[in-house]
Amino acid sequence: MQKSPLAPTSPADLLAVPGLRLATGHSGIKYKNRDDLMLMCFDHPVAVGAVMTRSRTASAPVDWCRQVIHQGGMATAILCNAGNANAFTGAAGHDAVRRCADAVAGAMGTDPQTIMLASTGVIGEVLPDDKIIPHLAPMVAAANPDVSNWHAAADAIRTTDTFAKAASRKTRIGDTDITITGIAKGSGMIAPDMATMLGFLATDADLPPKVLQDVLVRVNEESFNAITVDGDTSTSDTVILAATGAAEHIAITSADDAHLSDFVHALREVMTELAILIVKDGEGASKLITVQVHGAENDAAARRIAFAIGNSPLVKTAIAGEDANWGRIVMAVGKSGEMVDRDQLDISIGGILITSNGMRRPDYDETEVTAHMKGDQITIQVNINIGSGQATIWTCDLTQQYIIINADYRS
Amino acid sequence: MQKSPLAPTSPADLLAVPGLRLATGHSGIKYKNRDDLMLMCFDHPVAVGAVMTRSRTASAPVDWCRQVIHQGGMATAILCNAGNANAFTGAAGHDAVRRCADAVAGAMGTDPQTIMLASTGVIGEVLPDDKIIPHLAPMVAAANPDVSNWHAAADAIRTTDTFAKAASRKTRIGDTDITITGIAKGSGMIAPDMATMLGFLATDADLPPKVLQDVLVRVNEESFNAITVDGDTSTSDTVILAATGAAEHIAITSADDAHLSDFVHALREVMTELAILIVKDGEGASKLITVQVHGAENDAAARRIAFAIGNSPLVKTAIAGEDANWGRIVMAVGKSGEMVDRDQLDISIGGILITSNGMRRPDYDETEVTAHMKGDQITIQVNINIGSGQATIWTCDLTQQYIIINADYRS
Repeated sequence: MQKSPLAPTSPADLLAVPGLRLATGHSGIKYKNRDDLMLMCFDHPVAVGAVMTRSRTASAPVDWCRQVIHQGGMATAILCNAGNANAFTGAAGHDAVRRCADAVAGAMGTDPQTIMLASTGVIGEVLPDDKIIPHLAPMVAAANPDVSNWHAAADAIRTTDTFAKAASRKTRIGDTDITITGIAKGSGMIAPDMATMLGFLATDADLPPKVLQDVLVRVNEESFNAITVDGDTSTSDTVILAATGAAEHIAITSADDAHLSDFVHALREVMTELAILIVKDGEGASKLITVQVHGAENDAAARRIAFAIGNSPLVKTAIAGEDANWGRIVMAVGKSGEMVDRDQLDISIGGILITSNGMRRPDYDETEVTAHMKGDQITIQVNINIGSGQATIWTCDLTQQYIIINADYRS
Repeated sequence: MQKSPLAPTSPADLLAVPGLRLATGHSGIKYKNRDDLMLMCFDHPVAVGAVMTRSRTASAPVDWCRQVIHQGGMATAILCNAGNANAFTGAAGHDAVRRCADAVAGAMGTDPQTIMLASTGVIGEVLPDDKIIPHLAPMVAAANPDVSNWHAAADAIRTTDTFAKAASRKTRIGDTDITITGIAKGSGMIAPDMATMLGFLATDADLPPKVLQDVLVRVNEESFNAITVDGDTSTSDTVILAATGAAEHIAITSADDAHLSDFVHALREVMTELAILIVKDGEGASKLITVQVHGAENDAAARRIAFAIGNSPLVKTAIAGEDANWGRIVMAVGKSGEMVDRDQLDISIGGILITSNGMRRPDYDETEVTAHMKGDQITIQVNINIGSGQATIWTCDLTQQYIIINADYRS
C-alpha cells in the first residue's frame, strides 16, 4: 500500500514514559514481513481508563476489557495484535482471549484479570491464539523502557494504516514534570464512536482509575470521537489510557481538580494529534477536511450538523474533485435534521464567506475558494446563526482509491 | 453518461390516464440536446397528495408545493424542470417560482395557487425563469392525452439519470377499472426521506385530497422511502399523486376503506417499481442490493438496521468487489444502535445462512455465496431473532464510477 500523501514527512519526537516497558513480536497471522504484536508491561498494577466501541456486535477482547474496567480498572499489561479482530467469533473467540491473558499473566506472575487486550483486522475468524502464545513469554522477557520501542509499537499495531501514528507531550501536575505518550492505528471504518481504531496512551502521572476514566471520556469526545472517514463503526474500537504513577506529585482525586488542567490540555493535544493522523491516513484520503460549525442550537446539534457534512459522500467526492460545490454543504446541513433557518445560514470555505440571506452572496467570487480547494487542507465553516453551540470535526475526501482499497480488502 | 448496466432492456408498457394532458419542452438551461421541461395539465382542478423532502434547507418549489397542499390540495397543473434545483436561492428563487406559476395559470385560465412545481439540478443558482416562461403557453396549447407523452415526460425530468423511469398498473375500485401511471427521476443524493428524487403519479380514480395524501404517505414509506444510494438527502424531493376523477366509482371517504385495497396494492407496485429503477440507476451502480431484516424489536428498528447495512460504504464497496465479506454486515448491524444480541444473529447472503451462535457456521462453504456475489442482484437477509419487526430496503453497490461521477458533476 502506498503511503498516504498526507503522511508526516518525519517520525514523531517521542518521549519514554517511566514505569512501563514495551516489546513487539511477530505472529504472522496476516502480515508476513513485519511485527504484528505489541505488549506494554507495567512495573506494578497501574490505573487504566478505557473507552470502547458502542457497537452492539463488539469483539471478544472488547468484552474482556470492559470487565477489567468494571472490576476496578487496574492493569499489569496491554496486549494488541493486528490482522485478526476476533470479532463475531462466539465462545471460541472468548476462549482465545482468555488463553492470551493467561499466557501474559503467567509470564509476568500477575492476575489474568489485569491484562487488557485489543485486536483489529478481519471480522469473523477465531483468533488463532496458538500463533500468538509462544511469543508472549519471550516478549515479556524482552520488554524494556527504551523510547525506540514506542516507534516499533506504533508500527506493529497497524492494519491498513500506511504510516505509524505516535505523539508525545511534556506537561506538569503541580510542580512535577509529567510525560504523555500515545500511539494509535486506524484508517477505515472510522466514525464517531470510534470505528476500527485503537489508541494506547500512557503517562507517568499518578491518578486513580476513576479520574483517568473521567478525563479520558471527556477528551476522547473532542478527539477520537470527532473524526470520521466513512461513517462506519467497528466492533473493536478501544482507547486505553494508563497512568504508571512513576511521577510523584500532589494527590489528585477529581477530574475537575484545577491542578489537572495542564495535564488535560496536553492529553487533548496528544489525542487530537493522533486523531488527525488517523484521518490523514483515511483510506484513499488526498485532503484533510476540517468542519467547524458554530451558532447552532447547542453543542450536540453543532456536532450532528458537522458530521452530516463530514459523512456526506457528495461533499467528500466534490472535495476529491477540487470542486467548490457549496450547494452540497447546504444539502448536508439540511439533512442533519437539526434546527436551521435556511435564510440565516453562513457558509465559508477556506475562510471565504459564500452565502448570506439564504443565497449565494452577490459579490461571491469563486477564484479564491477554487485556489483553496487545490490545497490538501480544506476548511469548511458553517454559522447557523441561531444559538451558541459549536463543534469541530475532521474528515477526509472520498476518492477512487477508497473504493479500490475496500473492494478487495479480504483478498 | 453511459447507460446503467442494470437498466431495463425495453421501455415500460404505459397506460394513458384519462383526465390529463402532457407536454414537454426545451429551456436549454443546462441540457442542450433534449427536453428539460414537463407539464401535466388537468381538465379541471383535481385532488393531489404530495410528499416532500424533510430537509431543513428545502428548495423554493418545495416551499411553494407545501402551500398548495396546505390550502386544500387541489391542482390544475404540475410543472417540472431539470438542470436547476432553485434551492438555496433566497427571495429571488421564490420570485422565479411565482412567475412560473403565474405563466402556467395565465395560459390555462386558472389560479396560480393550483400550479404544483418541482425543480432538480444544481443547488444555489437562481432559476432563470426567463428561459422557461416563453415555452409555457405553447406547452399548455400542445398538451394532449396521448400515452407517448408519458415516455417523453419521463425523459424530460431526468438529470444524471441514465435511463427514463416509468410504470403503469390497471386496478379496480369497486366494479370500476382504474389506471395508475407514474414517472420518476433520481440517481444520486438518494436516501430515505427521498433525496433528489421526483415522482409524478396520476390516476383516474376519484379520491378526495385527504384520502390521496394518507394513501401516498403510507405507500411512500415502503417504496421511495425504502431506497438509498448514498445516504444523502436532497433539498428538492417531491412525489405528487394526482387523481383526475375521470373514472366513476363508488365514493371513497377514507384511506382505510376496504374497497381501496386493490388500488393501494397497485399503487405500491407502481411506486416500488419506480423506486427500484432509481436504485438501478444509482450513480455508478453495478449491482442491485435488497436488504431484508426480520426478527427485530419492531418495524422501525428493522428499518434502521436495514439502512445501517444499506448505507455502509464498507458493505457497498465489498459488494462492488464481489467479496462475500459478511463481517462488514455484522459491523453495520452493530453500529445501528438497535437492540441486537450478537450471539442470536443469523446472516444470509443469496439465501445461504452464514452465521449461527455468534459466529460463522462450522459447515459454511463460501462457494455458493461467492457465485451469488458475481450476479447483479444481491440479497442480504438478517434475522435479529428477538422480535417480529421487519423491513425491506433497496440500495446499490459503491463503485469507482460513483466517485468519478460526483467528483466533477458541476463542471
